[in-house]
Amino acid sequence: MSKLSIIVFSGTDDKLIPVGVIAQGAAALGMDVQIFVTGWALTKFIKKPANPVWPKEFESMVPLLMEGMKKNNAPSWADMLKEAKSMGAKVYACSLMASVMGLKREDFNELVDDIVGVATFLQNAEGGQTLFI
Amino acid sequence: MSKLSIIVFSGTDDKLIPVGVIAQGAAALGMDVQIFVTGWALTKFIKKPANPVWPKEFESMVPLLMEGMKKNNAPSWADMLKEAKSMGAKVYACSLMASVMGLKREDFNELVDDIVGVATFLQNAEGGQTLFI
Amino acid sequence: MSKLSIIVFSGTDDKLIPVGVIAQGAAALGMDVQIFVTGWALTKFIKKPANPVWPKEFESMVPLLMEGMKKNNAPSWADMLKEAKSMGAKVYACSLMASVMGLKREDFNELVDDIVGVATFLQNAEGGQTLFI
Repeated sequence: MSKLSIIVFSGTDDKLIPVGVIAQGAAALGMDVQIFVTGWALTKFIKKPANPVWPKEFESMVPLLMEGMKKNNAPSWADMLKEAKSMGAKVYACSLMASVMGLKREDFNELVDDIVGVATFLQNAEGGQTLFI
Repeated sequence: MSKLSIIVFSGTDDKLIPVGVIAQGAAALGMDVQIFVTGWALTKFIKKPANPVWPKEFESMVPLLMEGMKKNNAPSWADMLKEAKSMGAKVYACSLMASVMGLKREDFNELVDDIVGVATFLQNAEGGQTLFI
Repeated sequence: MSKLSIIVFSGTDDKLIPVGVIAQGAAALGMDVQIFVTGWALTKFIKKPANPVWPKEFESMVPLLMEGMKKNNAPSWADMLKEAKSMGAKVYACSLMASVMGLKREDFNELVDDIVGVATFLQNAEGGQTLFI
């Protein structure tokens, strides 16, 4: 079984869509999927998540994107991630950045399986492929 | 022969330069190169491509970049991609995001070889390296 | 020993933090780490580096981030990179983009080991994992 790891750093909502799509697609193919949430993205995995944030360069296209997602009955990135998790994917929050941002275990929502350090993540990722999003 | 896959999500023109450079360089080394275009980047692979979009943070440096590209006779990212394709690289548009954005096969330009789903892409990418740009 | 390569294109200071953290973590695990600096990121590896640049979308959160880094005694990304280099990591500047930006060998600071082309980088990266940041 091949391994796919995703480091999610970007906190804009557009980039969470490919995180969900790729995680779900890879898990459905039987890949061993782990997601390491760090940086701004941590603000999207807490009980009181940040409001949607879109890249300044493409703000004018966001309504088209949202309408297209709805028309295609595309699930939200969080629902795709839940689906991936139901097939074995794991989601970890980065311990260093959680601490830097003052986030504790109880601040994270049910998407997060655990808080781990970068060394643990890198060791889990060995021998597979890793994306930085 | 080693495999290099590139997921191109960002639609700003600066990030299309490394897509072209890396695809051409890898193809020239005999690597098996596939490019999966999704998200905002789809707007750069259609017959009526979007106007150039630059990251807000570096807009003031764009004239210097463009002048430097010209002085160095650096080809455009599209020409580098054509060169990569002439050496065997393949360019695929993401079926889900194409549908979300209302883009059909005939909307894409000659750079695009086919429209495929993420599962097909991930299977093709197995055993190689994948970049998310 | 497994190989980890990082292409650093983004020039915003937030994304240099994971470059430092991952490079140091991977080097400490005994991985063979190489960093290929290109695009806007080149402006952060010169003797007169550009002023800090933050993503427009998260500018309001930067003071919280900086305060958290200080409270956690987190080293700067440059210090983490120096630590990684002391354990064998290598940092290369991209020859094409250096030329495009009018940067010569003597313009780069002590973090940069050499200026290399993309073909050399890709060959060094073969058989490992590569991140694009």
